[in-house]
Amino acid sequence: MLAEIITIGDEILIGQTVDTNSAWLGEHLNRYGIEVIQITSINDKKTSIINALQDAEKRADVILITGGLGPTKDDITKKVLADYFGAKLITHEGALENIKDIFHRRGREVLQINVDQALVPDNCEVILNSKGTAPGMYFEEKGKIYVSMPGVPYEMKAMMEQVVFEKLNTLGDNYTIVHETITVVGVPESHLSVAIESVEDNLPPHVKLAYLPHLNLVRLRLSAKSAEHTADELKIDINTAFDQIKSIIGDVWFDGDHNLPEIVGDLLKTHKKTIGTIESCSGGFVAHSLTAVAGSSAYYKGSLLTYAYETKVAIAGIDQVMLNEYGAVSEQVCEAMAHNAKAKLEIDYCISTTGIAGPGGGTADKPVGLVFIGLAKPDGTIEVKRCEFHGTRIQIIERTAYTALDMVRKAIDSSTQMAML
Amino acid sequence: MLAEIITIGDEILIGQTVDTNSAWLGEHLNRYGIEVIQITSINDKKTSIINALQDAEKRADVILITGGLGPTKDDITKKVLADYFGAKLITHEGALENIKDIFHRRGREVLQINVDQALVPDNCEVILNSKGTAPGMYFEEKGKIYVSMPGVPYEMKAMMEQVVFEKLNTLGDNYTIVHETITVVGVPESHLSVAIESVEDNLPPHVKLAYLPHLNLVRLRLSAKSAEHTADELKIDINTAFDQIKSIIGDVWFDGDHNLPEIVGDLLKTHKKTIGTIESCSGGFVAHSLTAVAGSSAYYKGSLLTYAYETKVAIAGIDQVMLNEYGAVSEQVCEAMAHNAKAKLEIDYCISTTGIAGPGGGTADKPVGLVFIGLAKPDGTIEVKRCEFHGTRIQIIERTAYTALDMVRKAIDSSTQMAML
Repeated sequence: MLAEIITIGDEILIGQTVDTNSAWLGEHLNRYGIEVIQITSINDKKTSIINALQDAEKRADVILITGGLGPTKDDITKKVLADYFGAKLITHEGALENIKDIFHRRGREVLQINVDQALVPDNCEVILNSKGTAPGMYFEEKGKIYVSMPGVPYEMKAMMEQVVFEKLNTLGDNYTIVHETITVVGVPESHLSVAIESVEDNLPPHVKLAYLPHLNLVRLRLSAKSAEHTADELKIDINTAFDQIKSIIGDVWFDGDHNLPEIVGDLLKTHKKTIGTIESCSGGFVAHSLTAVAGSSAYYKGSLLTYAYETKVAIAGIDQVMLNEYGAVSEQVCEAMAHNAKAKLEIDYCISTTGIAGPGGGTADKPVGLVFIGLAKPDGTIEVKRCEFHGTRIQIIERTAYTALDMVRKAIDSSTQMAML
Repeated sequence: MLAEIITIGDEILIGQTVDTNSAWLGEHLNRYGIEVIQITSINDKKTSIINALQDAEKRADVILITGGLGPTKDDITKKVLADYFGAKLITHEGALENIKDIFHRRGREVLQINVDQALVPDNCEVILNSKGTAPGMYFEEKGKIYVSMPGVPYEMKAMMEQVVFEKLNTLGDNYTIVHETITVVGVPESHLSVAIESVEDNLPPHVKLAYLPHLNLVRLRLSAKSAEHTADELKIDINTAFDQIKSIIGDVWFDGDHNLPEIVGDLLKTHKKTIGTIESCSGGFVAHSLTAVAGSSAYYKGSLLTYAYETKVAIAGIDQVMLNEYGAVSEQVCEAMAHNAKAKLEIDYCISTTGIAGPGGGTADKPVGLVFIGLAKPDGTIEVKRCEFHGTRIQIIERTAYTALDMVRKAIDSSTQMAML
């Protein structure tokens, strides 16, 4: 079964909103065996909406529409859908109750434009909005399925999870689909692809490999899709390819769609170890990456963000003489930061970062992108890595965090292997 | 002049990559008077690419294509474009030099697939890639302009900024376009739209208003587009609308496309004040938001991230008795955190956060989303705000940061007004 996603809203075309909904929908539809054939973003004009619907009908069985359901005048999706299907707008009592409920709970008055949000075309099945005021709409017309949902990501996601996936699931093809993603850190995409060319060339025809480079890691997506194989058989095909890649590259792993902070978190939990950070150039981004993971309080204890020179001295007890001699961006200071913060925070692993994120502040000696990353470990040793990152300020901050987290992953991995010897 | 953006890549359709390129392109093209009429994301199949090109030609004068230029087998854009235009692939010497240069600088061997990246259709003008290996391509065919660029955001952006915008600018219409964005914090979108309905209804026909809600703030975009007015005249129209909105809503400001951390940073710099944070539930996200701004070392000094109970005691000197009596998520602890960290970090403004970001850890008394935000000010007073946020863990963390930064903005604004009295 093929789907097309239509996102409606001037704000996407003029770039004031990044469309994150489509990525989420694409990922989740895939798991239900529904392939997204196209994502189309258009403006809030009636002709654009109608043209997009007509084009999508030529390609897809299911058309998922997000956006244009707000209470304000620039939102016209509902009226256009009613016209398109020759339906008329009627008030849906359940949707109205929901709107009144929300405003009462927030202690706000219900205005006429809020009441009007309960109007829906009379040919749709209403999808109640558990997170906001605009109801969703499910249509079966012309042998196709159309679903119209709000553009607010968590409202749309709740509707998909509570109602839409289940309805679509009963309509799916008999294809079996299995995806796995492998993470490889520190090997450039082109070198990786040459190294594993023989694996790629010998994949069974129903297994595909794609490269997803992101900062200093590459994710390899292995997808198997077949009407003739069981899920278990497809998993074996994927595992075979993985084993072949691992025998060539060595340090790779199935990430289970978990990102690096989640993987590091799982390792820390399994090994009952705690972590914290002392950050200069990364300004809290390593700590944020760790604490963005639900349940991170089981292993993350705290951080010292010592951005200014004087804070490094006052909060982290870095020796002023050492700072003067080597500078804040140096191996020596990076090591001292990790050492001191590990003791102060009373943690097992302590990440330290100091560098020049730019765009200003670089010198010939210490250019923008020069970053030292330290890791103090449970056995008392401290590893310091000198990195030269390129990219924007944000990219340098992100690369610092990824590299630091990968150092933790490797350290725990190798400590496990030591213990097993 | 109308543009369409085509993004090519399975990774977008299956949701492993969020398309941020299109938003950036849309925003920047607008400034050159070029309106994006549609964004189309398709897979790496030849038929999909050709269909998308044919459809886009019906709507747009300029077709900007990103993605599918990598060295690996799943990238076919270049070959499809050559076939589509009946061109043949030839090696471009400048592009080849660039590729060799990059690999030599990184101390990596140049492989055949790297050399092949210098192949381009013989009907294009090459756009050299200053940030990576894949060359861009500029075509004038069938009365339209086609630009094909890598999907890597900073490579694409460099090509647009160094070459493409300038070329497109000479082709533009004679429309004058002026945009301004106003930020409003803490008023729901529907209430805002009713309050300023009279302003919206009385806008000149060439001025449009759009609502861009994001977490607990709404941005209002005022766009003026006209062939008969000068930029100065359009600015007057926008300023008139802004003054009318300000007279109704009060606390609104032109954000100059600056986000809240940038606005707060500018205020701190102007008033020569320093800032730092002590964070529990926000886990470093407030500090990260502040330090993501280039030049933030002028005012940001450091932070204490006291996630665990014991860290609150050991690092921030919070009284264990107080913690036991009121709990870590309490007004009292929030106030003490701001007080102690302001002194330890020796800063003028200190933000403190403590709350329950979820999804676990909530109780009837202290539900997920309950967050206390403190602000210690230069005069020694401390303001504490009790918030009940809804949404996911990440949304609660983001709302905490936005609310905290807005407290700083208001505090500096009102201290300025006091000084002016």
